Amino acid sequence: MLPTIEWKDDRIIMVDQRKLPVEEIYHELKTFEEVAEAIEKMIIRGAPAIGIAAAMGIALGYKNLGKDDKNAFLNICERLSKTRPTAKNLFWAIDRMKIKYESSQGKSYGEKSKALIEEALEIEREDVEMNKKMGEFGNSLIDNGDTILTHCNAGALATGGYGTALGVIRAAHFSGKKIRVFADETRPFLQGARLTTWELLKDGIETYLISDNMAGFFMKKGEIKKVVVGADRIVANGDFANKIGTYSVAVLAKEHGIPFYVAAPYSTFDLSLRSGEEIPIEERNRNEVLVINGKRIAPEEVKIKNPAFDVTPSRYVSGIITEKGVILPPYEENIKNIIGDK
Amino acid sequence: MLPTIEWKDDRIIMVDQRKLPVEEIYHELKTFEEVAEAIEKMIIRGAPAIGIAAAMGIALGYKNLGKDDKNAFLNICERLSKTRPTAKNLFWAIDRMKIKYESSQGKSYGEKSKALIEEALEIEREDVEMNKKMGEFGNSLIDNGDTILTHCNAGALATGGYGTALGVIRAAHFSGKKIRVFADETRPFLQGARLTTWELLKDGIETYLISDNMAGFFMKKGEIKKVVVGADRIVANGDFANKIGTYSVAVLAKEHGIPFYVAAPYSTFDLSLRSGEEIPIEERNRNEVLVINGKRIAPEEVKIKNPAFDVTPSRYVSGIITEKGVILPPYEENIKNIIGDK
Repeated sequence: MLPTIEWKDDRIIMVDQRKLPVEEIYHELKTFEEVAEAIEKMIIRGAPAIGIAAAMGIALGYKNLGKDDKNAFLNICERLSKTRPTAKNLFWAIDRMKIKYESSQGKSYGEKSKALIEEALEIEREDVEMNKKMGEFGNSLIDNGDTILTHCNAGALATGGYGTALGVIRAAHFSGKKIRVFADETRPFLQGARLTTWELLKDGIETYLISDNMAGFFMKKGEIKKVVVGADRIVANGDFANKIGTYSVAVLAKEHGIPFYVAAPYSTFDLSLRSGEEIPIEERNRNEVLVINGKRIAPEEVKIKNPAFDVTPSRYVSGIITEKGVILPPYEENIKNIIGDK
Repeated sequence: MLPTIEWKDDRIIMVDQRKLPVEEIYHELKTFEEVAEAIEKMIIRGAPAIGIAAAMGIALGYKNLGKDDKNAFLNICERLSKTRPTAKNLFWAIDRMKIKYESSQGKSYGEKSKALIEEALEIEREDVEMNKKMGEFGNSLIDNGDTILTHCNAGALATGGYGTALGVIRAAHFSGKKIRVFADETRPFLQGARLTTWELLKDGIETYLISDNMAGFFMKKGEIKKVVVGADRIVANGDFANKIGTYSVAVLAKEHGIPFYVAAPYSTFDLSLRSGEEIPIEERNRNEVLVINGKRIAPEEVKIKNPAFDVTPSRYVSGIITEKGVILPPYEENIKNIIGDK
């Protein structure tokens, strides 16, 4: 398995997730600005992964300063915080880097820089560990013989490794359960088609690609037994934002009585927001919808809407799989108890 | 507006609906086998349109025989009936051509051939007339200021002209109501993106293109006021088959309390089937899902499902707009009364 992102002493390497699986192109980023642009352009995507990328970008930017400069450090943090608005993990990671910086006061510039690099790497390591724990907890919800639907890519490529939703699927598979996965292609960016199928096939998991609009058909036929997805932000009442289309899948799952699970680490929770209505939803470029593989699919003059995420109210959620256990309703109370003040 | 299909004395001309709107390519078909292949390859598509194409294909094939041959005539009908399994209009049109042939017994070969050509052209003319009547009845359901969601293309290109679902939208627009349309792109074939937006923009109707998985998001925001779709087959209890993804839209509409209408002429009804479970669903080639604009979107070894249609139970349907009026529940009784024995 390719690492999603790799820290080298003077640069960050990432695979271009816009090109997978047909092309494996690696980018070597040498400035925090390049990292910020890589996040904006979705060379790297997935809530935990962009948190890690931002942390590494801050460590790289501070290293490139050559001397301590608090204002410059904060400007780097500010630039990275402007890349994408929805995923909580991004702001969580940036806050963690700021706290590390503050707690390193009194140390030399070299020590501070080293502490920031260590913190970014620690965020990455913790993320993989949390995914593996989530996988164990989530596996308890999966039955032998299940066919699991997932949307977008909440896999190794969306995280430090292993994955959130796909971590649960991997854990079930490697524990010996016979499972099949239906992957929604996930327009407009096609993360499900391009990334999820690729990851799962590498692990030998039986994977079917379907168009997003086919999920209801297979649910009605009784072929889908569980749904597992990731999250970009989960708020105090259990409402959550995730890739556009997740909400539709949740409504369909409810209509067919199919359990619908969300898998995410504590870094995805935002207890400062009380309901999903408060989550900012990114509107992305019209060409992501209008152009596929370099070719227009509609007249140039058509109007386009391209919300990158939607919000699913917690009443559609059967359980939230975290590294601390599976959170069940009532969410407001149980999230407070299990995730607490973070 | 381009005609969907045009009869010339010795050939049939159709625009290649796989290439629109970026390219306008016309095919000149000189044999019934070419017409059959054009239907199979979806050069022409849409339930009423393939009925018309099959009727013209039969008229052309019979003309090419050069003499009367009942077995050859029935073989032509048989070949065209094998092109696609789901749309009722195809079988209805073929049956009508067979009846015309039988009722022409005793006439000369030339007279029979002329009668078959006339019947095919009559099927086309009637279809346009029915669409306009449907438009009038459907318009009574549309309010000034409505935003209407539609799925796939049930427009001029799917019919003899004017359209079923898009006929309703056209009628509302030309009656002076201010309306907006959200067009689902409709993967895998992208009829919504390629054909619906193109048709509606030509008529000056404000049209937004969205990915299929965005419909739920806009319904939850309250932006969608009505849904209008076409149908490939409507059975005795009101269940209907339509382009894959229609069922998901219907479930979402119900969840949000949004009226969901189906527009189709009597030729789409199949009262020999009692429930939607009995409708044969076409499974199409994996490459329609795997390859977009000439490029693969997933690993070659991925498994793929590609059902071309789904079935929506009539409990999700607010009304069926036909050329004879709007059919409301209870469907079994009212369909029998309004559509009768056809």
